[in-house]
Amino acid sequence: MNLILLDPNEINADGTVHLDDRRSRHIIEILGSQPGDRLQAGIVNGPVGSAEIISIKKQKKTATVVLRFSAEGLMPQTPFCDLIVALPRPIMLKRILAQAAELGVRKIFLINANRVEKSFFEANILKDEKYRQFLLHGLEQAKDTLLPEVSIHKRFRPFVEDFIPTIATTYSKMLVAHPETGAGLKQAAGNQISGRTLLAVGPEGGWVDFEIDRFIEQGFVPISMGSRVLKVETAVVALLSQLILLKGD
Amino acid sequence: MNLILLDPNEINADGTVHLDDRRSRHIIEILGSQPGDRLQAGIVNGPVGSAEIISIKKQKKTATVVLRFSAEGLMPQTPFCDLIVALPRPIMLKRILAQAAELGVRKIFLINANRVEKSFFEANILKDEKYRQFLLHGLEQAKDTLLPEVSIHKRFRPFVEDFIPTIATTYSKMLVAHPETGAGLKQAAGNQISGRTLLAVGPEGGWVDFEIDRFIEQGFVPISMGSRVLKVETAVVALLSQLILLKGD
Repeated sequence: MNLILLDPNEINADGTVHLDDRRSRHIIEILGSQPGDRLQAGIVNGPVGSAEIISIKKQKKTATVVLRFSAEGLMPQTPFCDLIVALPRPIMLKRILAQAAELGVRKIFLINANRVEKSFFEANILKDEKYRQFLLHGLEQAKDTLLPEVSIHKRFRPFVEDFIPTIATTYSKMLVAHPETGAGLKQAAGNQISGRTLLAVGPEGGWVDFEIDRFIEQGFVPISMGSRVLKVETAVVALLSQLILLKGD
Repeated sequence: MNLILLDPNEINADGTVHLDDRRSRHIIEILGSQPGDRLQAGIVNGPVGSAEIISIKKQKKTATVVLRFSAEGLMPQTPFCDLIVALPRPIMLKRILAQAAELGVRKIFLINANRVEKSFFEANILKDEKYRQFLLHGLEQAKDTLLPEVSIHKRFRPFVEDFIPTIATTYSKMLVAHPETGAGLKQAAGNQISGRTLLAVGPEGGWVDFEIDRFIEQGFVPISMGSRVLKVETAVVALLSQLILLKGD
């Protein structure tokens, strides 16, 4: 936790924040902070800044920390990359959500595909915003505050054929990961990327031909990491990192 | 398992291989293969090719598959990147080893650093080549055969001050990940990398100043992903992927 992330609703009228959860435990047990200390902090979807510790109260089972936040940075910049992922198994989804947030993805579209196990859509992590905590872990790690928006799309064709056309004009590049057959990112996108990018990563075992054809119909360009077939979670981090490099900021 | 990896020692005089482990179970249970089928296969540190299934014998607890391997590809090319990692906690090390193999790292130096917990050096995964299975997972995923060499270095200064000078001339670039202060990889390395690269990634919490100074003394260039502080496992995949992009092969 490199940044203490606060929700706007947590800030009281007098500017203080009362924490009584894993953040207060982290402040007390890991950081060993004392009243008067200042910690790096940020508001979800708001500015970064610092939080002064006003008081610490440690009891048997609870650990309450009162902070006062001061904004010091600018509002976060909107990240340039959105991500489509064929819904992976829950344990992998947790890591992908955290790592996508860590790398500054803005929107995450979790979609169906032929090789997605239908039971994954019943997973607990997709309910009641349980996934939010994994996004927060990623932001806390990367010292970012912009919470990615997650949406779930249970039907492949309506997503690609009806929904994609409604957002396609907002992207300057749309890429679909397709191991072995796609070109390298440099061949597909050149040495520099400007504007927003939409990246689609398939399930373990890959997209089926029908799916790749639908993406290409919508203007997606197939890309790969050469002959290597990567695990979904490796591919997400690898391709996002390559896009960040070509974006060059 | 996109590639059935065989050890050279497993191949009998008549060219057959008897499997009775997770590979035979994978062939029977996941792939549902039958005698006569051909599977993508490879020899550890040798060529890729195909394996014809000669026979399958399934009993209560065992599943024996007899294969005959035929080489079809070239010997693997030596990957261009070696990796130094401050020894992470075992669960993270497993993923890092698999992902480094997946991305084609040749040598992995696991080293000590100020913020490495000393107990990590007692971890079971460092004993008896237990780590080898995680490297194999990565190769099986990426359809590669070149097994990374792993070495363990319990003392930081002798590694950086005495050992690094003995290998430094084999690298055209030596980079050390240093969040927030390092330049982006493009600024540090330009649009194209030629020759071999050595990348050093620190522990959770980062290298201490003393360590960064020693790396710089030896000719390492600090790099970062901008203001983002990444988890070690994210940083390893992210930076290796960026290097692969700049290498451009």
